[in-house]
Amino acid sequence: MATIKEVAKYAGVSVATVSRALNKNGYVSEAAQKKVEEAIKALDYFPNEVARSLYQKRSKMIGLLLPDISNPYFPLLMKGIEENARENGYSVILGNVEEGSKLKQDYMTLFGQQNVAGVLSAVEGTVSQNHSMPIVMLDRVLEEDDYAVYTNDVKGGILAAQAIMDRKPGNVLIIAGPKSVPGSIDRLIGILSVLNPTDVNYEIHQTRSFTIEEAKETAEVIFRKYKKIDSVLASNDLFALAVMKEAQTRGLHIPNDIQVIGYDDIPFSQLVYPGLTTISQPAFKLGYQASDLLIRLINKNKISKKRIKLDPKLMIRDSLRKK
Amino acid sequence: MATIKEVAKYAGVSVATVSRALNKNGYVSEAAQKKVEEAIKALDYFPNEVARSLYQKRSKMIGLLLPDISNPYFPLLMKGIEENARENGYSVILGNVEEGSKLKQDYMTLFGQQNVAGVLSAVEGTVSQNHSMPIVMLDRVLEEDDYAVYTNDVKGGILAAQAIMDRKPGNVLIIAGPKSVPGSIDRLIGILSVLNPTDVNYEIHQTRSFTIEEAKETAEVIFRKYKKIDSVLASNDLFALAVMKEAQTRGLHIPNDIQVIGYDDIPFSQLVYPGLTTISQPAFKLGYQASDLLIRLINKNKISKKRIKLDPKLMIRDSLRKK
Repeated sequence: MATIKEVAKYAGVSVATVSRALNKNGYVSEAAQKKVEEAIKALDYFPNEVARSLYQKRSKMIGLLLPDISNPYFPLLMKGIEENARENGYSVILGNVEEGSKLKQDYMTLFGQQNVAGVLSAVEGTVSQNHSMPIVMLDRVLEEDDYAVYTNDVKGGILAAQAIMDRKPGNVLIIAGPKSVPGSIDRLIGILSVLNPTDVNYEIHQTRSFTIEEAKETAEVIFRKYKKIDSVLASNDLFALAVMKEAQTRGLHIPNDIQVIGYDDIPFSQLVYPGLTTISQPAFKLGYQASDLLIRLINKNKISKKRIKLDPKLMIRDSLRKK
Repeated sequence: MATIKEVAKYAGVSVATVSRALNKNGYVSEAAQKKVEEAIKALDYFPNEVARSLYQKRSKMIGLLLPDISNPYFPLLMKGIEENARENGYSVILGNVEEGSKLKQDYMTLFGQQNVAGVLSAVEGTVSQNHSMPIVMLDRVLEEDDYAVYTNDVKGGILAAQAIMDRKPGNVLIIAGPKSVPGSIDRLIGILSVLNPTDVNYEIHQTRSFTIEEAKETAEVIFRKYKKIDSVLASNDLFALAVMKEAQTRGLHIPNDIQVIGYDDIPFSQLVYPGLTTISQPAFKLGYQASDLLIRLINKNKISKKRIKLDPKLMIRDSLRKK
């Protein structure tokens, strides 16, 4: 494939002129424009990324599968991904799969057609259809995934349960996230590893998704179903916020009558009253490191760690009682 | 350019076999695989989207510029865009510009290199560098933009101000959005058209952005600066939520001591206590229609309306006093 230098030489103009002519940006004389166009034709030069992609058999694009962009946790991941991708000259094509939909396969096909260089997926169980296309899983990671960046959710569960146990709970309700999401199980393992050795009363309420719609339904249900709870470990911040709102609507005081802890630390945790105490996942960092790992894979660069596990931390605000 | 049928005919196999051979998906005998590869070479067949894009001089991709994906209003827009694009066989490349950053130009260059078929932009003042690339502006639209989908913000301002005037305000504070965003000016025009003919006291607090960071700062500042306000018209829901939280932290009752109305109707407006009364922008519909308009432009289909203005509506919840 011809280079821009060869085009310039053939046309008898400078590389800068070829560049201006190609980008239709800045002054180029009619004569020079014509010479450049002839040179391009003669040398079969393709001036853009698409041509480069075809030539190299892959593009400078990454496909990204997310389960729910209306949950603010995922835009935070996306910001990290995008920043790293941009620094490396890659673009990100978005596939918003929606929790539980069948769009995952459609997007994987589309990504294949667009010749993406690799895929980042936060949709559990994403598998490459094409063995030459690298995939890095992030956030929702299975044991069999080769390349992955995720939070230590067992530790997250432990931190949340310890924060509750330090604050004299009476009856604890654990809102467990969907069983299909690996992190939900890990969080529950972490929580139970703290609660089980004690004699605290607890119940587990199982949910099917992390969506705002189910959060609102669940908040109503639990106050009817579990009469005496005074401490709630929520599956994510959306569920925690919905429980807080429902409690306040019922005239309960937070944290005196009922204390609540979330998971994720979405920006809204700080915008409610009282502020939500939660487990902070390093969302931006997860995204940034996942993109970094994928681009290393694409470029066959050295990879020191195939699976990267990041630590969550406890963010104390005002939805738990004083110690 | 050869078609897959011609490749099959040349190779003496079925189209299904060519497809399996190309996608490395399913069983293909070694002999058939070889014949297909020879046919592809002989006919100069390019089996993917990238090749198609090069051939047609444009891709099935749309570039999307957004100012801030961590504001939940924009993921809602994005969902509408993505759904329409997917229905039309287009992918969306995301450019998250961040309020006030200089990334807009970088992304436009990247989109050009990726040969996108068109651009959707919610970043004010986006201009095509390449006259053949269609652009549709959405949400943040200037008078000179040819193709645009946006909310009737004058009407939004009127609805918000009327809702306040119906509820006996004492001293009103208007938090005005950044002057660089056309919709901010329109909302203010709408608000003032309702307040000015009355004798209500009001003050205007000018802001520089719509970000959560500035929302938190502003909420603290206004309670120090404006002593007697009892009604707040916020520039968006993030600012409204921050004001509500600050008021509650100061022991004020919402809506009795201070009533607040937002703008956007992000999902969190429903998750706070009390629920935020706000002006609902049809975000999903804005995104969906903007993508539809752009793809019509790309395909040179009939366009009945170049600029589409959608109506906002008042969502009554509990942050305003009773009428």
